Amino acid sequence: MKFRIAFLLAASTLLASVSAQAQFAKPEDAIKYRQSALSVMGTHTGRLGAMVNGRVPFDARVAQDNADVIAAMAKLPWQGFGPGTEGGKAKANIWTDAAKFRAGGDKLAADAAAVAAAAKSGNLDQIKAAFGTYAGNCKTCHDEFRNQ
Amino acid sequence: MKFRIAFLLAASTLLASVSAQAQFAKPEDAIKYRQSALSVMGTHTGRLGAMVNGRVPFDARVAQDNADVIAAMAKLPWQGFGPGTEGGKAKANIWTDAAKFRAGGDKLAADAAAVAAAAKSGNLDQIKAAFGTYAGNCKTCHDEFRNQ
Repeated sequence: MKFRIAFLLAASTLLASVSAQAQFAKPEDAIKYRQSALSVMGTHTGRLGAMVNGRVPFDARVAQDNADVIAAMAKLPWQGFGPGTEGGKAKANIWTDAAKFRAGGDKLAADAAAVAAAAKSGNLDQIKAAFGTYAGNCKTCHDEFRNQ
Repeated sequence: MKFRIAFLLAASTLLASVSAQAQFAKPEDAIKYRQSALSVMGTHTGRLGAMVNGRVPFDARVAQDNADVIAAMAKLPWQGFGPGTEGGKAKANIWTDAAKFRAGGDKLAADAAAVAAAAKSGNLDQIKAAFGTYAGNCKTCHDEFRNQ
């Protein structure tokens, strides 16, 4: 019985791993993908942040455009951190503490969706609140999982 | 009168140029941005293409996820080709024939939105038709505006 459960667990882990790998032909493709997605997300985070911080005048339409891109991008990078894709600025604990890293990614995606929802309201105070929560993820995750 | 129109045209061109430039602090930021957006778009185009071509089994949910990313990304790269951002694989005619390049980008974005709309139907034949039109843009534009 124990053997059977262990076997099923191993088989399902293998399957999940094969499926993640199959998304990218080579590890460097996965690295390029996650770096590209994070870069685009960073650009639009910076633009919305400038509006939230008052460095750029608030424009509800532009805020929403940026928030929509952030919400779309925040779901993507994590699939590029599959087994065997170490590299770039990624720290080793992304793979040794994969559950925590994955939970951080899921939280970021949810918080980014909340920014997009707030942007739909056109209310700057709501956007500021949601953006603050969203942007907090960036630093937390970079401090823990990214080499400077 | 002629002078006044010429002046207004020059002023509005300057304004548009300043506004495009203001999106990126340095030309290399614009180049990195457009390359990142195109790279993410390419990854998801490849995934949806594999489904459309039957190399991967059709999964309506996965098709829609990919189509949504394609539609979001297809709007982005063009802002990264502002004045003074020559570089990468970009040919000079992107700037000397800017209106044609811009029209191509707008068409791609519209065709990508049609792919996302088709994906919502869950009908593979509709997706195939829309994807064919969308993917045709890639080759046309690369042949004309990208160094190999």
